[in-house]
Amino acid sequence: MKPESMSLHSLGAAAAAVAPVSELLCIFGTGDLGRSLGQCLLQSGYRVVYGSRRPHSSGPLPPGAQVMSHAEAAQSATLIFICVHREHYGFLETMAHHLERKVLVDLSNNLKKDMYPDANAAYLQRLVPGAAVVKGLNTLSAWALQNGLLAGKQVYLCGNSMEAKRAVADMATKLGLSVLDRGTLSAARELEDFPLRLFPEWRLPLRIATGLTAFFFFYLLIRDVIYAYVEQDKDISFRIMVSLANKVFPIVSLIMLSLCYLPGVIAAVLQLYRGTKYRRFPHWLDRWMLCRKQIGLVALALAFLHAIYTFIIPIRYAVRHKLISRVVDEMKNNKTTPFYFDNEEAWGTDSFFALGILGFFLYVLLGLTSLPSVGATLSWREFSFIQSKLGHLTLFICTVHGYIYGWNKFLRPSTYKWYTPPGYMLCLIVPSVVLVLKVLLLLPCVDRTLTRIRQGWERTEPRDEICKATNL
Amino acid sequence: MKPESMSLHSLGAAAAAVAPVSELLCIFGTGDLGRSLGQCLLQSGYRVVYGSRRPHSSGPLPPGAQVMSHAEAAQSATLIFICVHREHYGFLETMAHHLERKVLVDLSNNLKKDMYPDANAAYLQRLVPGAAVVKGLNTLSAWALQNGLLAGKQVYLCGNSMEAKRAVADMATKLGLSVLDRGTLSAARELEDFPLRLFPEWRLPLRIATGLTAFFFFYLLIRDVIYAYVEQDKDISFRIMVSLANKVFPIVSLIMLSLCYLPGVIAAVLQLYRGTKYRRFPHWLDRWMLCRKQIGLVALALAFLHAIYTFIIPIRYAVRHKLISRVVDEMKNNKTTPFYFDNEEAWGTDSFFALGILGFFLYVLLGLTSLPSVGATLSWREFSFIQSKLGHLTLFICTVHGYIYGWNKFLRPSTYKWYTPPGYMLCLIVPSVVLVLKVLLLLPCVDRTLTRIRQGWERTEPRDEICKATNL
Amino acid sequence: MKPESMSLHSLGAAAAAVAPVSELLCIFGTGDLGRSLGQCLLQSGYRVVYGSRRPHSSGPLPPGAQVMSHAEAAQSATLIFICVHREHYGFLETMAHHLERKVLVDLSNNLKKDMYPDANAAYLQRLVPGAAVVKGLNTLSAWALQNGLLAGKQVYLCGNSMEAKRAVADMATKLGLSVLDRGTLSAARELEDFPLRLFPEWRLPLRIATGLTAFFFFYLLIRDVIYAYVEQDKDISFRIMVSLANKVFPIVSLIMLSLCYLPGVIAAVLQLYRGTKYRRFPHWLDRWMLCRKQIGLVALALAFLHAIYTFIIPIRYAVRHKLISRVVDEMKNNKTTPFYFDNEEAWGTDSFFALGILGFFLYVLLGLTSLPSVGATLSWREFSFIQSKLGHLTLFICTVHGYIYGWNKFLRPSTYKWYTPPGYMLCLIVPSVVLVLKVLLLLPCVDRTLTRIRQGWERTEPRDEICKATNL
Repeated sequence: MKPESMSLHSLGAAAAAVAPVSELLCIFGTGDLGRSLGQCLLQSGYRVVYGSRRPHSSGPLPPGAQVMSHAEAAQSATLIFICVHREHYGFLETMAHHLERKVLVDLSNNLKKDMYPDANAAYLQRLVPGAAVVKGLNTLSAWALQNGLLAGKQVYLCGNSMEAKRAVADMATKLGLSVLDRGTLSAARELEDFPLRLFPEWRLPLRIATGLTAFFFFYLLIRDVIYAYVEQDKDISFRIMVSLANKVFPIVSLIMLSLCYLPGVIAAVLQLYRGTKYRRFPHWLDRWMLCRKQIGLVALALAFLHAIYTFIIPIRYAVRHKLISRVVDEMKNNKTTPFYFDNEEAWGTDSFFALGILGFFLYVLLGLTSLPSVGATLSWREFSFIQSKLGHLTLFICTVHGYIYGWNKFLRPSTYKWYTPPGYMLCLIVPSVVLVLKVLLLLPCVDRTLTRIRQGWERTEPRDEICKATNL
Repeated sequence: MKPESMSLHSLGAAAAAVAPVSELLCIFGTGDLGRSLGQCLLQSGYRVVYGSRRPHSSGPLPPGAQVMSHAEAAQSATLIFICVHREHYGFLETMAHHLERKVLVDLSNNLKKDMYPDANAAYLQRLVPGAAVVKGLNTLSAWALQNGLLAGKQVYLCGNSMEAKRAVADMATKLGLSVLDRGTLSAARELEDFPLRLFPEWRLPLRIATGLTAFFFFYLLIRDVIYAYVEQDKDISFRIMVSLANKVFPIVSLIMLSLCYLPGVIAAVLQLYRGTKYRRFPHWLDRWMLCRKQIGLVALALAFLHAIYTFIIPIRYAVRHKLISRVVDEMKNNKTTPFYFDNEEAWGTDSFFALGILGFFLYVLLGLTSLPSVGATLSWREFSFIQSKLGHLTLFICTVHGYIYGWNKFLRPSTYKWYTPPGYMLCLIVPSVVLVLKVLLLLPCVDRTLTRIRQGWERTEPRDEICKATNL
Repeated sequence: MKPESMSLHSLGAAAAAVAPVSELLCIFGTGDLGRSLGQCLLQSGYRVVYGSRRPHSSGPLPPGAQVMSHAEAAQSATLIFICVHREHYGFLETMAHHLERKVLVDLSNNLKKDMYPDANAAYLQRLVPGAAVVKGLNTLSAWALQNGLLAGKQVYLCGNSMEAKRAVADMATKLGLSVLDRGTLSAARELEDFPLRLFPEWRLPLRIATGLTAFFFFYLLIRDVIYAYVEQDKDISFRIMVSLANKVFPIVSLIMLSLCYLPGVIAAVLQLYRGTKYRRFPHWLDRWMLCRKQIGLVALALAFLHAIYTFIIPIRYAVRHKLISRVVDEMKNNKTTPFYFDNEEAWGTDSFFALGILGFFLYVLLGLTSLPSVGATLSWREFSFIQSKLGHLTLFICTVHGYIYGWNKFLRPSTYKWYTPPGYMLCLIVPSVVLVLKVLLLLPCVDRTLTRIRQGWERTEPRDEICKATNL
């Protein structure tokens, strides 16, 4: 008795009943969300009935939907969407016997976090213990529902009844949503916090970037503008807008890029030191590793700004003024033409630019592969090739770009105004450390040990070794 | 009696039957689409049988597929794909009794819109009333099927039988497609128009952009090139290619960006005026709001062109020529070096560039978040933060960028050639209006009323207020 | 008896049992992957039991999971994940009777291709013939599982039992994965090779690009740098970094872009020549057509580099040096100001830049539509409009850009150093051929025949014609 034969039979039966038979869903609440949801369900071929306190004056509802009293509506359907504010859940308790064995989908959100001691969905389940409450779809906006912008959007579900969740998931899939099951109703709180989330994983990277930017801005402001004002009595404050920005951005970008690869190196060193991969990393390292993508993207954004700032250099007033002054000076000094052409300088600056361009190109490539849709098509080996090999190559090229910038300035005393090192020297420290450590880790003997550790070998417990290496 | 126990049992039974048992699907039509579909189904583990008029001379079919007469093929399977042109549906009527209780998937498309009075699928259902017709998968090309480019592609289904649609959806999901149910067979027409669609949502934005570009091109052509020719007898027509374009593009881009935020402001004013959110907006406003994304992307495209046009300014022949002329002039006039350095000018132009760069950066950020895969990962609050807060900030920065461009030209009489204002003045009108209105809407008293209205409060009907505020 | 009524009933029953009832899954192997998978399953609301050789000393496992001996764990669940290296599958044979009728999910990967004569999953099925082996999920990394980075990721399944695959697919869908069924267990080998894949579809395009780049680099090195050194005794080797690169990149980019459209033209000519579309193209043409997207993206990458190289031209030392030298020369020669302004030159260079910018803009547009998430939202007609119409327009504009570059150099003898044509002439050959052929194919008479052939008409077999044209 194959299961297929059964499905064939039921298919045939369904085909025989040619008249359209579509499922009936119930919506409590005729607000914006309720209406939009109803409209959307009707478009997907469902029949919809609204439960309303005053069925005869409930305002404009999508054409094709019925309106009944709450009790009548509840009885006619199995799946009931609760599109009502939590404060008004009270009436559901009074009609709990009508909701017995029904699936209640709680779509509510709160205006801010921790407004109530428990999740809305948990509260609803307490009010109507006989129903199967499913929390979910609360990340959808009325606007998206109304305008059919659902395709591919991720929604989350949770609930204690597997069957109830399956029914809701089937419905959501039909609307084109992609459903993620988050387990039992205890996850409802987390789900209700989703729509209130504001880039939590970006906070740390943005804070680091802001801190570094502020530090280097003031550092360079003092070294460049204030130094010139105090020591040479020149007002070059106009440089703040472009020249200074174009120093701060690449500096912070390079440091952020190296911060992207530092945790990987630290993790490797830690594993080598501990001689095992089975001890968890410290919490800060885990957190750091999880926001590497965001750190890298912030670095890319700053590199992008650096590139554009560089492109507009020659059309700036100050630069053109300087060029003209220089030409006139050359003439006055009555030099012979052709001038001396410094071949080394030409090689130096051209290499500097070429490496900068190549670095930026690789940067953009790394950024593109972190687009969700591009990343999803990569195999694990491809992804690690791009993010690790290409990533370290980018860091290397950008660091060399930084070194060439200062190639003939490192030993010049005038570089160290007020005995402070220039910004680009400071910014080369972290990348250099990361690159040196990475090279050390790639030494054959170190690399071999590390590979063995990552395949499950442990230095300290030889007895366990065999056992661990068994598992993937 | 948990439902799980049942599934465990059937799983066990299935596991016991170790020999591969795969479903048999039938395809009518051995053309390009039929063959590619068959090949694709075979790769996904189905068995495939073709129905052909002449089973013995039907050309090359994918290896592993069987060929039979139409009637035999139809009897062997439950799901039949109709890969035949509508004009040849006739034979299906004659074999309607063989198709009783079968699921017929109509994949046909037409060469142009409104070729026939009814949808192909509706016609098919009329011919074979005993079968369950499902329209769908018609957006797939033979090329995509042949080369396994299906993963993640969206397909649409419609049909009167839920069971039939579920069977087709299961099959499509297995091929890696993401299925959207569009309801009953009455949607078939819409589905058949899909492959013929050519950027319908881009039409309005592109028309606006073209109109504005044409207007400003001729306006600036007259003011710049023709004015110079008539009044000063100079031929500066070469400017059309770069200088003029680099004036027109930013102007149109800024106007388009403000048109992106104007409907939101109008909607808010309308809601304030009406005192309710429950009356629908006029049709033109709805339509406008729905193509805001496209308007914004067109604005971004023009801003991108503006940026590149700006970057290549210094390598243009005319610019270099002018620079050299100026230097030689400076020398001739025997001025003293160093020249006067206009600090205010330096601040002005550098701020101008810095704001332009920042504006462009935010522009690109807005564009990135409107990529489907990026947008899908954002929570509702994040999306509205980016599109509303960052969007208005972008508009503000770009508008200031425009104002600084004209900072010292507004009062100069030479600016008003032939008594016409220059282009950048015209382009600042709409953004300024949008920003002023937005600031007015953000005034505490106005904002409070608007927030209440958007939470369901109504000014005119105090009795309903409580009721409406109940619903989400 | 509608199938719905049944589901209503079971839903009601499930809702009545309010206590969370979640499925129990078993994992063999307590390594990194096993732990991460378990943690992930627990988060999605499953119960998890580990099978371990030594249940009492199996190291840290996710909280909430049970640990038992292999046999006990196997008996408690229907679905068993095998997170053990292939070398240690032996113990599974000894406990084959415990695994009777179970679904075994083989997640193993190998370190390199062709390590074993058969697929791991096939080997497993041989060891435990009574179980239903499903190969899959092996593209997931422990890292992704641990950190909930699964949403939307594509995973592949294969196996001989449909029911077993369905159970695994349901589970995977619940984790947010998007599942693709690849048929029977014979596909296991292919699945095991997936994680070892390293850009197979990029290899050919990258090889072509590397070959062309190397050729043109040495060709231009000889013509520019070595020629100047030998004939004029000048060392202009510094040009290698920027000037030479900025000649090689656009040349290779244009050739790659034309190689993107050449196979389409060849295919059309072949169809015209054969008079049918029903004969398969030669293998090399098929392969070529399948990597057109990658060829185009490589071309875009090179065009991007060309653009940036162009933007930084004016800030290069050599360029500024030349500019200053020129000014001083002009002064020395005591020319009258204003200098002669070459209007034709101004038009020429400005058109050159304008076309370059427009071409690059269209290039970027083509690149954006080949992003998976953008491409998925396009209808077939939209996609072919962009890739064919816009693509050929891009090729046309970029080719004209190339022609204008050499507009006044074609007839100059000094262009042909050492009797070799300059690089840009060589690079214009292929694009010109493609464009000429395309124009010929668009001639009304040719186009009509081609359209008929593509709709199924055949020149040589008039009897078949009617039959073929029936099918889609």
